[in-house]
Amino acid sequence: MQTQSMERMESNVRTYSRSFPVVFTKAKNARLTDEDGREYIDFLAGAGTLNYGHNNDHIKQAMIDYLATDGVIHGLDMWTAAKRDYLETLEELILKPRGLDYKVHLPGPTGTNAVEAAIRLARVVKGRHNIVTFTNGFHGVTMGALATTGNRKFREATGGIPTQGASFLPYDGYLGESTDTLDYFEKLLGDKSGGLDVPAGVIVETVQGEGGINVAGLEWLRRLEKICHANDILLIVDDIQTGCGRTGKFFSFEHADIKPDIVTNSKSLSGLGLPFAHVLMRPELDKWKPGQYNGTFRGFNLAMVTATAAMRKYWSNDTFERDVQRKGRIVEERFQKLAALLSENGMPATERGRGLMRGIDVVDGDLADKITAKAFEHGLIIETSGQAGEVVKCLCPLTITDEDLLEGLDILEASVKTVIGQ
Amino acid sequence: MQTQSMERMESNVRTYSRSFPVVFTKAKNARLTDEDGREYIDFLAGAGTLNYGHNNDHIKQAMIDYLATDGVIHGLDMWTAAKRDYLETLEELILKPRGLDYKVHLPGPTGTNAVEAAIRLARVVKGRHNIVTFTNGFHGVTMGALATTGNRKFREATGGIPTQGASFLPYDGYLGESTDTLDYFEKLLGDKSGGLDVPAGVIVETVQGEGGINVAGLEWLRRLEKICHANDILLIVDDIQTGCGRTGKFFSFEHADIKPDIVTNSKSLSGLGLPFAHVLMRPELDKWKPGQYNGTFRGFNLAMVTATAAMRKYWSNDTFERDVQRKGRIVEERFQKLAALLSENGMPATERGRGLMRGIDVVDGDLADKITAKAFEHGLIIETSGQAGEVVKCLCPLTITDEDLLEGLDILEASVKTVIGQ
Amino acid sequence: MQTQSMERMESNVRTYSRSFPVVFTKAKNARLTDEDGREYIDFLAGAGTLNYGHNNDHIKQAMIDYLATDGVIHGLDMWTAAKRDYLETLEELILKPRGLDYKVHLPGPTGTNAVEAAIRLARVVKGRHNIVTFTNGFHGVTMGALATTGNRKFREATGGIPTQGASFLPYDGYLGESTDTLDYFEKLLGDKSGGLDVPAGVIVETVQGEGGINVAGLEWLRRLEKICHANDILLIVDDIQTGCGRTGKFFSFEHADIKPDIVTNSKSLSGLGLPFAHVLMRPELDKWKPGQYNGTFRGFNLAMVTATAAMRKYWSNDTFERDVQRKGRIVEERFQKLAALLSENGMPATERGRGLMRGIDVVDGDLADKITAKAFEHGLIIETSGQAGEVVKCLCPLTITDEDLLEGLDILEASVKTVIGQ
Amino acid sequence: MQTQSMERMESNVRTYSRSFPVVFTKAKNARLTDEDGREYIDFLAGAGTLNYGHNNDHIKQAMIDYLATDGVIHGLDMWTAAKRDYLETLEELILKPRGLDYKVHLPGPTGTNAVEAAIRLARVVKGRHNIVTFTNGFHGVTMGALATTGNRKFREATGGIPTQGASFLPYDGYLGESTDTLDYFEKLLGDKSGGLDVPAGVIVETVQGEGGINVAGLEWLRRLEKICHANDILLIVDDIQTGCGRTGKFFSFEHADIKPDIVTNSKSLSGLGLPFAHVLMRPELDKWKPGQYNGTFRGFNLAMVTATAAMRKYWSNDTFERDVQRKGRIVEERFQKLAALLSENGMPATERGRGLMRGIDVVDGDLADKITAKAFEHGLIIETSGQAGEVVKCLCPLTITDEDLLEGLDILEASVKTVIGQ
Repeated sequence: MQTQSMERMESNVRTYSRSFPVVFTKAKNARLTDEDGREYIDFLAGAGTLNYGHNNDHIKQAMIDYLATDGVIHGLDMWTAAKRDYLETLEELILKPRGLDYKVHLPGPTGTNAVEAAIRLARVVKGRHNIVTFTNGFHGVTMGALATTGNRKFREATGGIPTQGASFLPYDGYLGESTDTLDYFEKLLGDKSGGLDVPAGVIVETVQGEGGINVAGLEWLRRLEKICHANDILLIVDDIQTGCGRTGKFFSFEHADIKPDIVTNSKSLSGLGLPFAHVLMRPELDKWKPGQYNGTFRGFNLAMVTATAAMRKYWSNDTFERDVQRKGRIVEERFQKLAALLSENGMPATERGRGLMRGIDVVDGDLADKITAKAFEHGLIIETSGQAGEVVKCLCPLTITDEDLLEGLDILEASVKTVIGQ
Repeated sequence: MQTQSMERMESNVRTYSRSFPVVFTKAKNARLTDEDGREYIDFLAGAGTLNYGHNNDHIKQAMIDYLATDGVIHGLDMWTAAKRDYLETLEELILKPRGLDYKVHLPGPTGTNAVEAAIRLARVVKGRHNIVTFTNGFHGVTMGALATTGNRKFREATGGIPTQGASFLPYDGYLGESTDTLDYFEKLLGDKSGGLDVPAGVIVETVQGEGGINVAGLEWLRRLEKICHANDILLIVDDIQTGCGRTGKFFSFEHADIKPDIVTNSKSLSGLGLPFAHVLMRPELDKWKPGQYNGTFRGFNLAMVTATAAMRKYWSNDTFERDVQRKGRIVEERFQKLAALLSENGMPATERGRGLMRGIDVVDGDLADKITAKAFEHGLIIETSGQAGEVVKCLCPLTITDEDLLEGLDILEASVKTVIGQ
Repeated sequence: MQTQSMERMESNVRTYSRSFPVVFTKAKNARLTDEDGREYIDFLAGAGTLNYGHNNDHIKQAMIDYLATDGVIHGLDMWTAAKRDYLETLEELILKPRGLDYKVHLPGPTGTNAVEAAIRLARVVKGRHNIVTFTNGFHGVTMGALATTGNRKFREATGGIPTQGASFLPYDGYLGESTDTLDYFEKLLGDKSGGLDVPAGVIVETVQGEGGINVAGLEWLRRLEKICHANDILLIVDDIQTGCGRTGKFFSFEHADIKPDIVTNSKSLSGLGLPFAHVLMRPELDKWKPGQYNGTFRGFNLAMVTATAAMRKYWSNDTFERDVQRKGRIVEERFQKLAALLSENGMPATERGRGLMRGIDVVDGDLADKITAKAFEHGLIIETSGQAGEVVKCLCPLTITDEDLLEGLDILEASVKTVIGQ
Repeated sequence: MQTQSMERMESNVRTYSRSFPVVFTKAKNARLTDEDGREYIDFLAGAGTLNYGHNNDHIKQAMIDYLATDGVIHGLDMWTAAKRDYLETLEELILKPRGLDYKVHLPGPTGTNAVEAAIRLARVVKGRHNIVTFTNGFHGVTMGALATTGNRKFREATGGIPTQGASFLPYDGYLGESTDTLDYFEKLLGDKSGGLDVPAGVIVETVQGEGGINVAGLEWLRRLEKICHANDILLIVDDIQTGCGRTGKFFSFEHADIKPDIVTNSKSLSGLGLPFAHVLMRPELDKWKPGQYNGTFRGFNLAMVTATAAMRKYWSNDTFERDVQRKGRIVEERFQKLAALLSENGMPATERGRGLMRGIDVVDGDLADKITAKAFEHGLIIETSGQAGEVVKCLCPLTITDEDLLEGLDILEASVKTVIGQ
């Protein structure tokens, strides 16, 4: 595999080619193939972008069919038949069945653009600048979104400009099991000199992906919604990594039976890995004036075509949801066993997650790296997350076959055993 | 044409569907077709995103072929054969022939992401926070990029957070013909109490698209480069709208024979309207640490496949360049005549532009709106730009046929005449 | 008493003339006299500025003697004999006996100027922008200091500019008795994605005056110092209200036996109520370049003359300290009784404080207002603090006579009883 | 003269003791005396703080008399007879005769506190965050004021926080004689994408003291006022250094016959060098809520006593004004001759100023330093200003005797001649 040209020409900023230093050429559902023909089971799946697998035939065909008609590919935010299909399908298959009546903002086609739009809208609507965000939250790296993202790696690389407009509060569980961190939030809201500027909105992930598969309790989420309502604060659920079925429901917040004021989706939204994002908002919040937020690639038509195909294929009934939940339990059980195994061998570890978004916290980032490096040797692509990379996480395609899922889990188990010398 | 669902469901933020309230279904090179079968000549071309036309068959076929092999569509920033082809082709066909040895950063796939990466890199490299930008500049709307964008519409919609990190200076010509605005810049740089924080970088468009087709003189650009060099400031050319041949050269700065330290490209870079962007930088500036700037859709493989096809098709020799320049002269001549016609009728107007990026400044935004509205009635999609929308601009595909180009120009002429009552 | 001219001409921003709507003409030690000749016992004492009483004869005489020699009154930061006396006396009587070897920065003559200098120095020294501050902290209202001040009243009156450069953490006791809030701080410091930018410094009041006479535990302060040392963070004690003997020691941090890196003093520093402030810093932190921070009234000579006189009179031995502690115990005992009385009558109240900085938290701001209003009727000037003005506080002159102290406490007790209907 | 203790204990930030490394002990009108009994004529006068001279007997006696009655020295912002006298005298002697009906805000007692209050009020009133300020402007160094101050020395010493909330525009004359810099301001105001956020206010010095005795033309000031009125922008004149008679009128803007919306005064306001400041505002702008801006030393009573005495002594009629103007002409003539002498000797120099605020721009900061150093040797205290310290400036007491004025000018002339070798 020839990699010199890439090593020479690509910026040092590259990351995944360091963990997986091979050249990939093909990909199908949960398998990637490198240039030498070696196959890998993919438990990373574009960091949650490929919920429906690589090169999903059904979705891809819809795009190819569209291309064959010379359908509009790029149309800024002009009206197209593809957009109409997308919006109507979203309404029919996703929103209405869940009792939601959101309006849709199509910003630039990435998660960070959606987050910037969401928090800006909250500010405009409420006339306040502050956004509450949580420890270990990740919401993007453009300057507006970065203010809500906890990672020092990004925060310290702004070249001398502090972020502004957000306050961090402890996420569920951050202060230990005996403390409900929302007590702190509620106390600050009622405290005229507590230093918390009354926020326009709260942005939260129901499960923190980059932050280490930290799972917010459903009761905690419900209380968060209540606090927001009681204090005239907008609740923004960033469902970019958790959405599109990842946790076993289309929206991750369905588990808690809450209705956020604003929702962001991206990553798996297009269904095929195409750049795409939308912001959903309660209709009465749509205070945007024409063109107040824009972007050249807003409303990318190919992505709307594939997203529509994905919704029709997977979200017309609850079969897919139930299958994701079933697979989630398989991973959960195997991860619990691995965590137990590690703990028994003096390396305290815990399993956590929701649906097919699961991790093993092995506490030590070096240990986690050893496990994932060994797994890659054995043909499994799996990554870590968490503040020190201490959580081995599974974000496999939701469409993974049981065979691949089990093989991947077997490889992971073998890798763990090798690393701990068993 | 059924539009109610879109009117109901899409956010008020939508814009182009207000100017062109029809539903488009098909598009080919310089023609769009609406649901009723009506055709329109497209002088907007995705605001400069479709330099090679809608559904360019050559480029599209490359994508379809790639899809047929189950090539990696989304791979985060992992190494793929598609990326290798892209980088090597860029080096061989674009950089080397122009004496450039840039390294390539693949950020999130939009212009604003590229701009955020570019200015952040400048800050990191120089250890200074300030970026000089120019009146009427447009560089994106995420918070970091917005600081360098002049439009009040966006700047006043941040919901209570002032932008930070940029200082505006007058663009070439802003203070009238007799003043070289770089005198002011140079004076401020040498003034210890002038209030200008010594900038890390200067970001500039060689022709301001959104700002009103304002054309920087080649001598002004050369002097700007000299000032930057003399003061240890990085020169960033934002070639997002001006690049990929729009002005008659691949990079717009080739006309001035300067070599920016950092370059941003997006819009037409993929060749097919797919979201894509890169940042080019002198190799010694690549101070990024792994992962310090990221984004889920960085290095979008489909776009790299199409971008490679576009480069091979159009940039292997200078045929295409010369054809763009030829067409540019056609538009220039016709626009000059229209400007003269308007002026003769008491509506002072001027033509300006470079290559196929041209406008008629009719001074009055309402007049410009009337002209473009009339043109749309007659089957021409054309938009305005400038601080008050006072410039009717042509950003037609560079691949437009002469027939379509002339027909479009005829429609525009007829529209002008109708509006002024001739 | 004629007040119309003041009501007409003075800005609405005025406050204390609303609580005490009389015209004062004379003042001596702990007594103020209004224009009608009525006397008031002063438990406010310039919000802690008059530790040595109004018109302290000893201190005043030093100033008058100096004036008689035509000593330099205003000399920018030039060397004067008055400055030399001040620095040498500070070293001899205050610093050396306490084992401190601070250097002295004389900024503009107010607390907020000193705080701006202190936090700016911390940033310059450490090359980091963030300052940790605490809930209910008050450190001034100029924009730099305001970032560290919790009060919404000020934070919301910036006219559209969010403060920047500070992160609020919970003060000792803020999360209840069972939680050591420094656990949270320490966890955040070790968390690479917790959202806390590693601070240059921590600014803390050992007892929060404006915040409601919240008292940091001595063990908590010691742990805070340890955390700072372990993480290369500067510890800044804002001793503006707590210093100059208010808590029973010259510096309030002496109780905890810690040595802050930077200390701010103002308020009672001049001894006579003259504007004055200094910043003390460990010598190795003095990274200021000449003139990097200035102000016309830095090093106000009259204040240095009076401050010197105050040190000589009250700080040559521990007599004064012990007397303050004795009086503090008197107030403590009486306040505890009043708190008990309120609690017994269904109004839960608690006493707290250190030295002669003491308060009764009556929970309800309206109740506190009624008590202080009634007290004023009876001839006692006493104010509230806390986020809702719920704490009746005593900041009487440290030099108050026992007679006046007891009379003031009797008035307060009578006022409480009247208000609760006893 | 013993200086070791000061050298050891005072922060490196000290400045004037570097230019004038002696210990001063006494001062009277325009003369300072050092510890060895040597006298110096003072052309610095506390950087414009001692318009009425050192130890002005009349003013000092008023303070001593007040102290003798045990008048309130420090009373926060409570009503006192001293405050009433101050406000009534200000109204009677200063405001009414000039047709002004300002309300008075008494912020913390320094210029920077007044500027922070003034610009914050403008923002609150207009609901916009931006303040236009000018190249070479100096308005203080606390973070809010610093945003409007041009000096890099301060701007680069914030430790990593960019200032925010202000835009710099070229001061009168900055772009050469043929350019009216207000053309640029007016163009930007009318330009929807010029990058200038519509300002709440404009802050301007009519003569820039620290900036190099740059004198705004009276016509320019009138046009600035007109532009502000036409665009609903508040005009703030920072009269801290230029006020209290320095330019030959009480307010420096009287020369231009304009009426600013907001005015700041400090420096010579107390008349005796005591810290003091006020903000004057048109009554309808007084949107402050009680306590929204505060400070311990607001409304310093001793300073109000001395300020009242100064107004009564010098501003009951126009005798003083006329005398200042007369002396100004003396300095002007002598400075013109010195400038001519320098120019004739190959060192181009120009005189400029208004009233007794005058400078010789010798272009070269080193040359200026040599002249002032030589002058100090000869017994004259005189300082430089300007971005590179290139302007030798005279800010002598307005009460200087003709003898001292002429002696000082003679010393300066001799110093210039020595330096240029004549």
